[in-house]
Amino acid sequence: MVNLSTMPDVNVTSTFWRNYRNLIVDKVLPYQWAVMADEQEASLPDDPSSGNSFEGSEGHTLRNIEIAAGLAEGHHTGYQFQDSDLYKWLEAAAYALKYRHDETLKATADRLVELLAKAQAPDGYLVTMFQIDWPQERFKRLRQSHELYTMGHYIEAAVAYYEVTGSRAALDVACRMADCIDANFGSEPGKIHGVDGHPEIEIALPRLYEVTGEHRYLDLATFFLHERGTNPAFFDEQFADGGSGNEMLDADVFPRKYYQIDKPFTEQTTAEGHAVRVVYLCEGAAHVARLTGDAELREAAERLWSNIVRKRMYITGQVGSTHEGEAFTCDYDLPNDTMYGESCASVGMAMLARRLLEIEQRSEYADVLEKQLFNGAISGMSLDGSHFYYVNPLEADPVLSALNPDKKHVLTHRAEWFGCSCCPANIARLVASVDRYIYTVHDGVIYSHQFIANQADFGGGVTVEQRNNFPWDGHIEYTVCNRSGQDFRFAVRIPEWSRGRYALLADSKPVGAEAVEGFVAIPVKAGCAEVRLSLDLDMSVKAMEASPEVRVDAGKIAFMRGPVVFCAEAADNPDNLWQYRVPATAVLDSAEQVDARFEQNLLGGVETLTVPAHVIQAAGSDDADDVLYRPAGQQVCRDASLTLVPYYAWANRQDGQMAVWLNRENA
Amino acid sequence: MVNLSTMPDVNVTSTFWRNYRNLIVDKVLPYQWAVMADEQEASLPDDPSSGNSFEGSEGHTLRNIEIAAGLAEGHHTGYQFQDSDLYKWLEAAAYALKYRHDETLKATADRLVELLAKAQAPDGYLVTMFQIDWPQERFKRLRQSHELYTMGHYIEAAVAYYEVTGSRAALDVACRMADCIDANFGSEPGKIHGVDGHPEIEIALPRLYEVTGEHRYLDLATFFLHERGTNPAFFDEQFADGGSGNEMLDADVFPRKYYQIDKPFTEQTTAEGHAVRVVYLCEGAAHVARLTGDAELREAAERLWSNIVRKRMYITGQVGSTHEGEAFTCDYDLPNDTMYGESCASVGMAMLARRLLEIEQRSEYADVLEKQLFNGAISGMSLDGSHFYYVNPLEADPVLSALNPDKKHVLTHRAEWFGCSCCPANIARLVASVDRYIYTVHDGVIYSHQFIANQADFGGGVTVEQRNNFPWDGHIEYTVCNRSGQDFRFAVRIPEWSRGRYALLADSKPVGAEAVEGFVAIPVKAGCAEVRLSLDLDMSVKAMEASPEVRVDAGKIAFMRGPVVFCAEAADNPDNLWQYRVPATAVLDSAEQVDARFEQNLLGGVETLTVPAHVIQAAGSDDADDVLYRPAGQQVCRDASLTLVPYYAWANRQDGQMAVWLNRENA
Repeated sequence: MVNLSTMPDVNVTSTFWRNYRNLIVDKVLPYQWAVMADEQEASLPDDPSSGNSFEGSEGHTLRNIEIAAGLAEGHHTGYQFQDSDLYKWLEAAAYALKYRHDETLKATADRLVELLAKAQAPDGYLVTMFQIDWPQERFKRLRQSHELYTMGHYIEAAVAYYEVTGSRAALDVACRMADCIDANFGSEPGKIHGVDGHPEIEIALPRLYEVTGEHRYLDLATFFLHERGTNPAFFDEQFADGGSGNEMLDADVFPRKYYQIDKPFTEQTTAEGHAVRVVYLCEGAAHVARLTGDAELREAAERLWSNIVRKRMYITGQVGSTHEGEAFTCDYDLPNDTMYGESCASVGMAMLARRLLEIEQRSEYADVLEKQLFNGAISGMSLDGSHFYYVNPLEADPVLSALNPDKKHVLTHRAEWFGCSCCPANIARLVASVDRYIYTVHDGVIYSHQFIANQADFGGGVTVEQRNNFPWDGHIEYTVCNRSGQDFRFAVRIPEWSRGRYALLADSKPVGAEAVEGFVAIPVKAGCAEVRLSLDLDMSVKAMEASPEVRVDAGKIAFMRGPVVFCAEAADNPDNLWQYRVPATAVLDSAEQVDARFEQNLLGGVETLTVPAHVIQAAGSDDADDVLYRPAGQQVCRDASLTLVPYYAWANRQDGQMAVWLNRENA
Repeated sequence: MVNLSTMPDVNVTSTFWRNYRNLIVDKVLPYQWAVMADEQEASLPDDPSSGNSFEGSEGHTLRNIEIAAGLAEGHHTGYQFQDSDLYKWLEAAAYALKYRHDETLKATADRLVELLAKAQAPDGYLVTMFQIDWPQERFKRLRQSHELYTMGHYIEAAVAYYEVTGSRAALDVACRMADCIDANFGSEPGKIHGVDGHPEIEIALPRLYEVTGEHRYLDLATFFLHERGTNPAFFDEQFADGGSGNEMLDADVFPRKYYQIDKPFTEQTTAEGHAVRVVYLCEGAAHVARLTGDAELREAAERLWSNIVRKRMYITGQVGSTHEGEAFTCDYDLPNDTMYGESCASVGMAMLARRLLEIEQRSEYADVLEKQLFNGAISGMSLDGSHFYYVNPLEADPVLSALNPDKKHVLTHRAEWFGCSCCPANIARLVASVDRYIYTVHDGVIYSHQFIANQADFGGGVTVEQRNNFPWDGHIEYTVCNRSGQDFRFAVRIPEWSRGRYALLADSKPVGAEAVEGFVAIPVKAGCAEVRLSLDLDMSVKAMEASPEVRVDAGKIAFMRGPVVFCAEAADNPDNLWQYRVPATAVLDSAEQVDARFEQNLLGGVETLTVPAHVIQAAGSDDADDVLYRPAGQQVCRDASLTLVPYYAWANRQDGQMAVWLNRENA
């Protein structure tokens, strides 16, 4: 069997993604650095998480590290996990350096690594708030301290930076951190038998194991995953002394399930509590399960994934139904207007999907990964790369965000930065690493699961070129070259939205093979120089409805074309969006009735949809019309049409209403 | 012109209301007293108002007064306005004694008055929290102190108790209170130029003026109404010293409009902030305007009324669209599931409607009054008289109330009591005084605006008997007797839901007169012993729709029959309520298609509606069906019917889903 690299060298050529990835290097990373290094001011909205708002959350992120390194003086500012924003930036920078040689970026990243090495304590500990102001509280307030979370993000960044640049310095800092954690945590007597309130170290340690081969790191990740929830009182026990006196560290407003510690992780069956924490926890578990074969961890991750994607996920991929605790609520509770849908949670879902694909090729993983990539995750960043969403609603109205406090966390325009600014760099690291989300390799099969044009080298003489204009066009071409001298198979994904409706040719001949778990595998024999594949996907517009179990979407539809979910915005539609009604013809024959058109000069180049509709006339200014309730049947309609744009591109024009779910016409 | 009493002696004979009024005497008042006197334990839910929750809000209401009277020792417990709960109880007791001679009740009330006289300070001040624990803060923290609010409630109670029982003792305490307030507040130098954060004294003082003739009280009410908002910084200025150190008194989490002090009351154009405060403020203004002819106050009250009933009121009469601040939000923002709809606000709307009717006979006032009486106000009390709602939602689900924190203020079963228990006795005083809401008298015309069977004596030989089985039957009979020797007119209201569709006979002959502002006036000549009227109202079932401006009710209908709004409950309907679809036939021909039937043994005797419907089948247990989103057109329906019960009677059976607004079928 040919020895295919599980981490091929992928050059993304997709126009859609190259635009985003160039933006990351040219705008996003310089902007984010400037804000975190206090070189540029950014205005902050109110913290969207009502349960998580503290005085002085405007942190000077780089400055904290300089203080810890002894290069500046003063107190720590911002959240306890503020360092991690810079680590996610470093991780994004690492991925960006893979596709763009940028001397300035590289020099900045190197200086940061150098600074971090100076700031790191002799025992490897590095969390600046504790080093600067709260040394006595180290590892003593794990419910809120985010110490392992923060160091976990550095470890992830260092692994990426090492992989791309070969920086031993970056990796050494990470190993010293991991060693520090290993020295303090574990099942052995004298070590702390507990976990961090925010999972992340569980993601970081298996990555560090993969590049170092140090088994202690994998064992430590396994310990954290199995330890979680075995002692639900652990956090409380840490507070037997009455607390630290620091409001951020002592806060205890959420139940145990918020931290996924109410029961052992391997016994959890539904996604409960803080959405990002659940998703990160599952990502770590899936990764460790793949490396160790731990069936319990794998099953737990798969079980929670299933619960999320079948019962708790928005059509655009977002998760988290309430701002209170940024949390899941219960099955099928998916309000569109009071929801949370944190950008970080969508990024996390993409990462989790990838880890699960690395275990098993199930189409559902790839479908959800695609959903995040083209909708929920990238909606968190403006097209100019300098404004971000923390909360991604499916329905918004600036009037209600301003005047109904139940919706005040829903911004109708992206913000320059946040007090708790976890999302901006998280989006950046996903976009910058999207080349890692296109293929997986298993048992001599290359699975091509994302339609992102690229040139990939799998080593040993095996290369793949994918050409397309996705997501706007469903025609995909592959050239698979095999100069390895060995057979292998190349499996093409048939996405859920095109299943049963596609055409696949290999060297101009129809491929007869059925899709198995959403993939059609084509043999690429030794000796054949290349196989040319042509795939045509069903790009007809689809009117989607939610499961009857979803209360808030009853009587509503959302339009999709390919993986892209569309929305209506005030910028294109003059009436109140809820006054439009989509007639049955447009719902049941959307492929014919809805017009799709690519507009090069709109929103960076997007497909728009034109949906025939009626508009219910608002009451006139006549007092007699100004009645709140009246017998049905008196409403007057006029013909109109709805113009829809991709959801990810919303809120890049004037402030106004937006809706993904549109009202159907009544019988 | 005959000298008709504007406050006739009315004996309510209506079966519907006699049941409620007997419950008040037999169950509600004894129960409420027992709880407030610590003779009975009651369990408290979490405080529904998130912005208003303090430690130790379980107050010992009577005990506080005993402590202030020197008959017990200890600290004050509960909210700063806790005394007022007992005052509303006293007011309800007064009204109850009018229709039921109950020695025990009378004795308890007399003892309470005696106790209050003892507790009252020599200068007339009486607010126990300040007397017991915070004497130095008297009138210094009016943003939150509720001192005038609390004394206002006593004054209202004393006026009622004096009117019914002739108790001078009760009235004297009230006059001393009013004198104390008058000595401390006013435009004169040295007095406090400010108002209470919670309007109520504005209601109380004109009532006290009416029974005492003391013009100072009316002038003081006028002062408060015109003072309000002239100095928006007044509350802040009181805190120039840094505050009292009492969390309840120092709380400052809401903007100025929450207290209606952001601008002069007479310049306010929309109902903003805390709903009960707005409504109480308008009630006081309307009352003072009628007594003084103050056009500015009248116009302000009418303007805010209009804004509320045309743009900010639920179909069941509730007001208050958010729990945060128990407040209005903006025009047409009427969410059914995250709303507030405080019982006190509906009671206040009924009281305001009556005050406006006393100024001018406009059908809208009587229509909304009826809406409150048969829906929003009485929904606050269980049919057993010992459980109460603070929040009255139009859509509820116990699962979401338990698991989605954005709905945790929505109880799906009434509570025994509340930490802030303003509502229970407020409902009691409205029901006990409903005899005062049936007629108004203007310029020689008796306006009969509520269909509540009764016998009324207007003095001077004029009596009216009204017979009906309303709200279940639309046949109304009147016998109007005129032995006064003078002509007068008797005006019958044609409610908005029957306008243009009614039959009115006077002495068996059709009345030709047109309704003017919703009233048809019949001359009752001197010398005619009696006129017999027969009115038949349109009791056909109506499917109602909301204004197109109301986003959340798009595609939905609610059913009414007469003034009664209906709802679906899980107790009668086995499927998830949102999975029912009401077909066009039932919407457009509800009079024929919807079956109405009186069920004597259900919920104390109620009309039920049976609506033909379809149910969207939920996904099967098969994994393949378990998909959140799919192309439209695959839903499977089955025939079903919806059983509806009156909204006011909901949540008197098992806990379960409830919805007023039902989904229409899609085209």
